[in-house]
Amino acid sequence: MTQTPTKPLLRALAGERVAPAPIWLMRQAGRYLPEYRALRAKAGGFLDMCFTPEHATEITLQPIRRFGFDAAILFSDILVVPWALGQRVRFEEGRGPVLEPIAPETLERLERQAVVERLRPVFETVRQVRVQLPPHTALIGFAGAPWTVASYMIEGGGSKEFLKAKRWALGDPDRFEALIELLVEATVDYLSAQVEAGAEALQLFDSWAGVLSESELERWSFAPLKRIVEGVKARHPEVPVILFPRGAGLGYARFAKASGADGLSLDTTVPLSFAVALQQEVTVQGNLDPAALVAGGRALEEGVDRILEALGHGPFIFNLGHGVVPETPPEHVAALIERVRRAAP
Amino acid sequence: MTQTPTKPLLRALAGERVAPAPIWLMRQAGRYLPEYRALRAKAGGFLDMCFTPEHATEITLQPIRRFGFDAAILFSDILVVPWALGQRVRFEEGRGPVLEPIAPETLERLERQAVVERLRPVFETVRQVRVQLPPHTALIGFAGAPWTVASYMIEGGGSKEFLKAKRWALGDPDRFEALIELLVEATVDYLSAQVEAGAEALQLFDSWAGVLSESELERWSFAPLKRIVEGVKARHPEVPVILFPRGAGLGYARFAKASGADGLSLDTTVPLSFAVALQQEVTVQGNLDPAALVAGGRALEEGVDRILEALGHGPFIFNLGHGVVPETPPEHVAALIERVRRAAP
Repeated sequence: MTQTPTKPLLRALAGERVAPAPIWLMRQAGRYLPEYRALRAKAGGFLDMCFTPEHATEITLQPIRRFGFDAAILFSDILVVPWALGQRVRFEEGRGPVLEPIAPETLERLERQAVVERLRPVFETVRQVRVQLPPHTALIGFAGAPWTVASYMIEGGGSKEFLKAKRWALGDPDRFEALIELLVEATVDYLSAQVEAGAEALQLFDSWAGVLSESELERWSFAPLKRIVEGVKARHPEVPVILFPRGAGLGYARFAKASGADGLSLDTTVPLSFAVALQQEVTVQGNLDPAALVAGGRALEEGVDRILEALGHGPFIFNLGHGVVPETPPEHVAALIERVRRAAP
Repeated sequence: MTQTPTKPLLRALAGERVAPAPIWLMRQAGRYLPEYRALRAKAGGFLDMCFTPEHATEITLQPIRRFGFDAAILFSDILVVPWALGQRVRFEEGRGPVLEPIAPETLERLERQAVVERLRPVFETVRQVRVQLPPHTALIGFAGAPWTVASYMIEGGGSKEFLKAKRWALGDPDRFEALIELLVEATVDYLSAQVEAGAEALQLFDSWAGVLSESELERWSFAPLKRIVEGVKARHPEVPVILFPRGAGLGYARFAKASGADGLSLDTTVPLSFAVALQQEVTVQGNLDPAALVAGGRALEEGVDRILEALGHGPFIFNLGHGVVPETPPEHVAALIERVRRAAP
């Protein structure tokens, strides 16, 4: 028996128009908050923080206490999955993630079996957050999409051209497919365990979908994400899934029509008229420019109003088109939430 | 009296279907060529090289001699315009361009009047290249688009988030408009002087159009580029102009319909079905993944065939979706050209 959801975010993901629009922000827990920086200063390395339920819970809850968002998103990182597969991953201050790159010939060293066991602290965080959330606030779990995670695993960190990953995908598609399939399976396990621990919705981040050509997007972003949605829903039919194929452009139409996802997170470049068309198929989420949140004032107000006017008449979740940046003044976030909530009829 | 062009590239830009499709590659002169690296090793700094007609001419001609492309593109850099406006610009090995950032309060120090005078060595290069080109090879001049150039001027170099540029644009749109307008005027002067020296077609690179929202794309990319096309054509009605709003996604439709450009260069992410629709309005150019050129073999062949099949039936110029990367084996470039030329009926 499926229950009708009562939390605003879950109602929107069930296809309902909710007024005022539920709002949360990608990277709402993070460096722009003084309370995050204070905890970070004493908490040790970044991965340690992700794997210490006490810290990860506190960080997840900080923006909820301060701003009353409609959803909390688990504080973690997309690279915990490669770490749990046995790849060496570390985070360097000011440099970002550094991984010992994998190659076709070292692919077999990755161990899928241990993923859920190794990520137990993450599920403990989910449990602790869930019991502390206000009753109207939903808890979102997440993972990286296979293409994006694979690109970090192969490049050994961030990249501009993604040349190593693309060379592998283009030159040895069978073994690249094997890596993607391994990530699909590990991600289904990982997300299912998050749901079992208390996550009420899931988001998959394909942050680098925007560097793929049409045929690559189909094969390495759309198809694996569709398999993950199917895999998770086979175990947990009730859990809504949001996909974020950032930069997919016209490719978003395919995700809206055929991925099986309940929600689609739109990046800042998605034109609002196109977003309205996508909204006929799926709940849309987005897509304020994070720079408008830094700028504040009229630029912020106009940006918010334009989005609400276009998308506020259907199933919609207010969000940014990308994550909150560290330069964001917290008071602009408060002003954003107030404007979104005041706009409702 | 307008003459009918006879060079394949110019015929394609005049709206003709040309078989085999004319081909050139963005960054076809560059680090992937041993003869470029040899000259670079003895030629001093990057900007010195751009401003020494003997060197810039030689580099421009290297890929023409080796591969017989249908067009040469002037060897230069989009940042010569800020340099000519009086901004300090240097290129650091391994780091890329470094500029002394401008701000709203230092905007008035930029000197538009001197631009053409300061860039005289560039026009000398254009003249020298033109007389040495084979008769069927067209010479393309170029400049950066105002948004992309402004972003370097404000950020002081490359950027991931373009936060300083966006904050200025969002927070002080009037003075940002003044900077954009200054760049429009300087660029019209600069491109017109290239035409007067012998450039037969022009391309404008808006490499960072893809980080703009719909309304920003309209105001900071489309509108200034349209003004540049009009300004250049007011002086030189016969010269075809190609625009490259990289990452514009659905925004490409607006450029195809209303920019006044003769050609539109498509990045790798543009779906071919959409490219075919754009081709109804304008000559399209593109859009092979530079990574496919690195990979070679079947991935290269399939990529080429897919593009030719979709776009070979209308006005079309074969190119990459972005620049040639240094890791590209020159023999893959030869194989690409052979395949494009052999495909013709």
